[in-house]
Amino acid sequence: MADARLDGMATHATTAPAWPKGFRATGGACGIKRSGAPDLALLVCDAPATAAAVFTRNLVAAAPVQVSRAHLAATGGMARALIVNSGCANAATGDEGLARCRRTVRAAAELLQCPVDQVLVNSTGVIGVQLEAGKIVDALPGLARSLAAGSCEPFARAIMTTDAAPKWASRDVRCSGADGAAFTARITGVAKGAGMIHPDMATMIATLTTDATLDAPTLHGMLRDAVERSFHRISVDGDTSTNDSVFALASGAAGVPSREDLKAIGTALTEVAHELALMVVCDGEGAGPGIAVHVEGARTASDALALARTVATSLLVRTAVTGRDPNWGRILAALGRAGVHVDPASIEVRAGGVALFSRGAPAAVTPEERARAFAGDTVTIDVRVGTGPGRDSFWSAGLTTRYVELNSAYTT
Amino acid sequence: MADARLDGMATHATTAPAWPKGFRATGGACGIKRSGAPDLALLVCDAPATAAAVFTRNLVAAAPVQVSRAHLAATGGMARALIVNSGCANAATGDEGLARCRRTVRAAAELLQCPVDQVLVNSTGVIGVQLEAGKIVDALPGLARSLAAGSCEPFARAIMTTDAAPKWASRDVRCSGADGAAFTARITGVAKGAGMIHPDMATMIATLTTDATLDAPTLHGMLRDAVERSFHRISVDGDTSTNDSVFALASGAAGVPSREDLKAIGTALTEVAHELALMVVCDGEGAGPGIAVHVEGARTASDALALARTVATSLLVRTAVTGRDPNWGRILAALGRAGVHVDPASIEVRAGGVALFSRGAPAAVTPEERARAFAGDTVTIDVRVGTGPGRDSFWSAGLTTRYVELNSAYTT
Repeated sequence: MADARLDGMATHATTAPAWPKGFRATGGACGIKRSGAPDLALLVCDAPATAAAVFTRNLVAAAPVQVSRAHLAATGGMARALIVNSGCANAATGDEGLARCRRTVRAAAELLQCPVDQVLVNSTGVIGVQLEAGKIVDALPGLARSLAAGSCEPFARAIMTTDAAPKWASRDVRCSGADGAAFTARITGVAKGAGMIHPDMATMIATLTTDATLDAPTLHGMLRDAVERSFHRISVDGDTSTNDSVFALASGAAGVPSREDLKAIGTALTEVAHELALMVVCDGEGAGPGIAVHVEGARTASDALALARTVATSLLVRTAVTGRDPNWGRILAALGRAGVHVDPASIEVRAGGVALFSRGAPAAVTPEERARAFAGDTVTIDVRVGTGPGRDSFWSAGLTTRYVELNSAYTT
Repeated sequence: MADARLDGMATHATTAPAWPKGFRATGGACGIKRSGAPDLALLVCDAPATAAAVFTRNLVAAAPVQVSRAHLAATGGMARALIVNSGCANAATGDEGLARCRRTVRAAAELLQCPVDQVLVNSTGVIGVQLEAGKIVDALPGLARSLAAGSCEPFARAIMTTDAAPKWASRDVRCSGADGAAFTARITGVAKGAGMIHPDMATMIATLTTDATLDAPTLHGMLRDAVERSFHRISVDGDTSTNDSVFALASGAAGVPSREDLKAIGTALTEVAHELALMVVCDGEGAGPGIAVHVEGARTASDALALARTVATSLLVRTAVTGRDPNWGRILAALGRAGVHVDPASIEVRAGGVALFSRGAPAAVTPEERARAFAGDTVTIDVRVGTGPGRDSFWSAGLTTRYVELNSAYTT
C-alpha cells in the first residue's frame, strides 16, 4: 500500500454495501441532535465477535474512548455490540461524563443480554457538554427492534455530524479456506469525517467489519497496519481529536481463512481503510482540492513520511493548491524544514506529472503545463529527494477561506 | 524573559530610533521592485564590527545565507557591512544565484575598501527568480554617498516586502564600564516580517546593532539567547523560510562593558528582539488578533514549550481567536496532542484572565466573562498543566480568511 496511488480521491458508490455475514445494524434519532436527524447508531454481532481498536493518541481522551479501551482490555478483544451517538462527544466531561457513558453501555448490555464489557462505544459532536444518556437509554429498545442485516447505510448516516455525505467502502475477498472449503470474505467499513468543517467536531470514527474468522492478535495486527497506511497518513487540520477511533470486528460467520487468505484479507482491510480516509480528507464544505504527496528516494521510509507530511500539511502549500498555483518554492521550503536531511541539489518536484523543479533549479514549464500541474479534484505532488530506498505518501486537502469562516464562527 | 509578558503586542514609536554609535546606514531604490519602492538597504560600520548571525534551519538555504554563513566562518565573526535587497530572495537559484550574490558582495567590498568576507548579505522576496545583480552593483556607489548616522528608518523601509509598516525597536543601557568609565550602550534593531501575507515571501530578516564592545563569542551567545526567546517563539504560518536570518553587529564605539553591564546588555538585546518578533507576528493584512500562550506547571521547560507551541499554532485555536470564540475544547485538544505527558484532570485554562476549564471540567462562565476572554488586540491564553517547574511561552496570530485569500492568489 506504500505503493498504492489512490489519488483520484474516493467517491463511493451511491448504493451502500451490505455488512458482512453475522452483523446486523441500524441507526435512528434519539433526540440529542436538536434537528431530529439520526444521531444513534447500533451495530450488533449475532455471536461474540473478535474485536480490536486504534484510539486517538490525544491524552485528553473522551469518556467513551476510555470505556471502550477498558472493555477491550478486559475481554482480550471480544465484543457483541458497538453503539455510537452523534451530536455530543462526551469529551472533557470528567467523572460525570464517564458515569453517563457507562449508563448507556449497561442499557445496551441488558438489552442484548451480554456482558457489559462486550459493548464498545463512541460519541462524536460537541466537546464539553454532558451526554443526555437518558435519551440513548430510552431509544435503545426501539432501535434494537430495527436491527437488520444488509445495507450499512442507516448506521453510516446516524454517525454523521457535519459530513456532507455518509462514507462507506467494501471489498470481497475470495478465500481458499484453511480447511479447503472455499468462501468469500467480505470487508465493509463506514466512517465519519474529521472536524475541518465545524468547531468542536474534530472527530473521526471508522468501523471496519469482516465475516472471516480472525483471532484477536491477528485482527489487531491487521488493523494497526491498515490505520498506519490510511488514517495515519491524512491530515485535515493537524489536530488529533479527543474521540478519534477506528474499530474492527470479525464475526467469523463466513469461514476460516488460510495463511494465504489472511494476507489478502489484510490487504483488503487496508484498502477499505484507505478509501474511507480519503473520503474523510475531501469531505465537507471547508475542503479544497485533495492533495496527494508522494516522496521517494529518501534515506529511510520514516524520512519519506516526515517529508510527505510536512509538504501535505504546509499552510502555504495548502493555500497554493486552493489557488491552483503550482508554487514549487513552497514545496521546496517545506522539504527543507521537515527535520530530515535533504540535499537541495538532488530534489525533483513534479505536480500533475509536470516537472517543476529539478537538480537545484526551476524547470522550464509552458503555460499549458503550469495550468495542468495543480488541476483536477486531486493535486498529486511527486517528490524525489535522492536515490535512497525510502518512500511514503501523505494526503490532505486545500485550505480555503470557507474553512476559516466555518471554524471562526462563534458557536461554543 | 521566560517570565516576560509582553502581551500587548508591540506597536513601535512612530519616530525611528537612531543607530548606535559607529554605524551609518541608508536605503534606496535600485529597480528590483517594479514599483520603484525602496529595495536596497546598506548598513556600514566605521571600523570592523564584531558580527554574529542565526540563520534559517531550512536546508534549502538561499544563496545569500550560504555566502553570509561562509563569511562569518572565515572572519571568525567580523564585518564591515550588511547589504539587504528586497524584491528577490535569490533562493532556489542554484550556482548562478550564488555567483550573482557574490558579485554584489564584491562590489560592496571594493566600494568600502574592505575584505570581501567582511560583507554580509541577505535578500528577501520572490523565490526561484535570479537576482538582478547589475542593478545592485550600479546603485551601490550612489547609496554609499547617502550613508548617515542617526535614524534607522531608511534601512528599515528598504528591507520591507509585504510588511504593512517598518519595524524597529531600541533600548539604552546605562553601563558602569569595565574600566570604571560609565557610558550608555544603545541597542537598535530593525526587522521585516514573515510571509503570511504574500506567496513566496516567507522571509524574516532582523538586524540587531549595539555600540558596546563585545567579543565574537559573547555577541554570538547573546544573539542565540535573544533569538531563542523571541524569533524562535513565534509562528506566522509554520513555515521556516529559505532566507530567515537574524544578524548582530557590535561596533564597540561607545565603551567596554563590565561583567554586570554584559548581563544588562544581553537582556536589552533579548527585549529588542522580542519586541521585533511580536511586530512580525502581528503585521500585515492577513493577520488576526495576536495570540500569546503561556504554559506553566509542566515537568520541564521543553515540555512547556511543546505545549505552548502546539496551542499557539493549532489551526482550530487560531480560527477560534479570529472568531473571538473562547473555545477551550480546542485548547484542550491541542494540549492533548502536543507529544508530552499531561494529566487532563490537572489542566487549568484561562483566557483574558477568565477561568475556562479547571480540574477536568468546564468552569462556570458568565456571558460578560466569555466576551472578555478572547477580546482585545492580543488574546492571552494561560495554561497550567500541573505543579512542575517547567514554563514557557509562544506567540502567534489569528488565522483569517484574508490570509487564505492572499496566499491562494495566483502569483508565481
